[in-house]
Amino acid sequence: MSTSIHLPTDPAVKAGNPYPKSDAPTPHSDVHIGGGDATTKTKSLDSGTTVKKQIEDLYKLIDGIETAMMTTRAPNGSLVSRAMQTRKRVHGVDLWFVTDNQSHKLDDLNFDPHVNIAYYRPSTSNWVSVSGRARIVNDRNKIKELWSDDLRAWFGDLQDGVHTGGPEDPRISLIFVEAESAHYQIQEKSAPRALFDIIKGSYTGERPHIGPTRELDAAALGAARKLEE
Amino acid sequence: MSTSIHLPTDPAVKAGNPYPKSDAPTPHSDVHIGGGDATTKTKSLDSGTTVKKQIEDLYKLIDGIETAMMTTRAPNGSLVSRAMQTRKRVHGVDLWFVTDNQSHKLDDLNFDPHVNIAYYRPSTSNWVSVSGRARIVNDRNKIKELWSDDLRAWFGDLQDGVHTGGPEDPRISLIFVEAESAHYQIQEKSAPRALFDIIKGSYTGERPHIGPTRELDAAALGAARKLEE
Repeated sequence: MSTSIHLPTDPAVKAGNPYPKSDAPTPHSDVHIGGGDATTKTKSLDSGTTVKKQIEDLYKLIDGIETAMMTTRAPNGSLVSRAMQTRKRVHGVDLWFVTDNQSHKLDDLNFDPHVNIAYYRPSTSNWVSVSGRARIVNDRNKIKELWSDDLRAWFGDLQDGVHTGGPEDPRISLIFVEAESAHYQIQEKSAPRALFDIIKGSYTGERPHIGPTRELDAAALGAARKLEE
Repeated sequence: MSTSIHLPTDPAVKAGNPYPKSDAPTPHSDVHIGGGDATTKTKSLDSGTTVKKQIEDLYKLIDGIETAMMTTRAPNGSLVSRAMQTRKRVHGVDLWFVTDNQSHKLDDLNFDPHVNIAYYRPSTSNWVSVSGRARIVNDRNKIKELWSDDLRAWFGDLQDGVHTGGPEDPRISLIFVEAESAHYQIQEKSAPRALFDIIKGSYTGERPHIGPTRELDAAALGAARKLEE
């Protein structure tokens, strides 16, 4: 984890683990599609690719996957998610979403602004995790800028001249997510080739050569914001 | 939200909203693929379907989508997700995952056991959110039960006779997620028909007739657990 805030590791967190690190000299990937896990401590991170290329690849992924699962934290501590259309990606990987301002998720965001925006593409097994802070934005000009015709369908026209689903509809708010870190995995091999490697590995114990996880911290995302401005 | 814990709503949470509820007499769906949002306060919840059918539909969805995004909460408060293969679904919608026990996510789970498991299927726009608590399980018999050949590929055989990727490999742990609530949306129309309704609605302001969101609370999930036992 490389976000803008670093807290010391709680020494108790590994207490329940009967296998101390010395027992696992070279821990490999976690068990999920695509291999390396951004959150495995001795992770197979991609260090041979420039930050610029890593950010370009991240943009390609996000721009190609319209729908994300947005996870918020409810006041009772539970984490809840729902599918959301990404309205716009801006500087770095800051993201805009449109919301009904009566949504429970706005209560969640007022309780805890931390969100996760997750993109997953089954056809390639590529995935993206954006960790950030959300802000509810009611700026009418910004709403007009991001509004489009399809919102009429989602909000519906209540025929009162006010709640029309149009850009002036008071129900429409925006959620701005300022990214603090991003993790993603992009496959370097075709899906059949990757599958071949996985099946082969299940016999030989040889790890499939699949794209490593990439991690962009607050500094990298900050640099990307400046590049775009 | 209907989970097992209810905290009072913070009266400050709506403070930033310039549009009090009375301004929006009939708030409709949130803006995401598929319409109704489980977390919209006056949500279009499916009340005409029995809990049994709702649970069956939920099972169909989860059993048909192998990979989930698992969101955990890091000690610095940020929400982080990664793609995970669902190893097994059991009673209710409790879920098993396999993990490398050196993963950062285990630190997250020791800090806060709340997780979200999100499934999204782009071809139908169906999605599932499971809110629950995770437990790290090192029971060797359970690991043997859930182990399968493909894990050799993910963990790799380190050729030391111990870290073989086999069921005895000390790196392998399980994550058990006990579901506290689940939200999902299942489309009742074909994708082209749903798209037609959305486009039509963008002209007419008529909301597309797409499947409502369903919500299963702790009681419903508890009942489902008993049905299966």
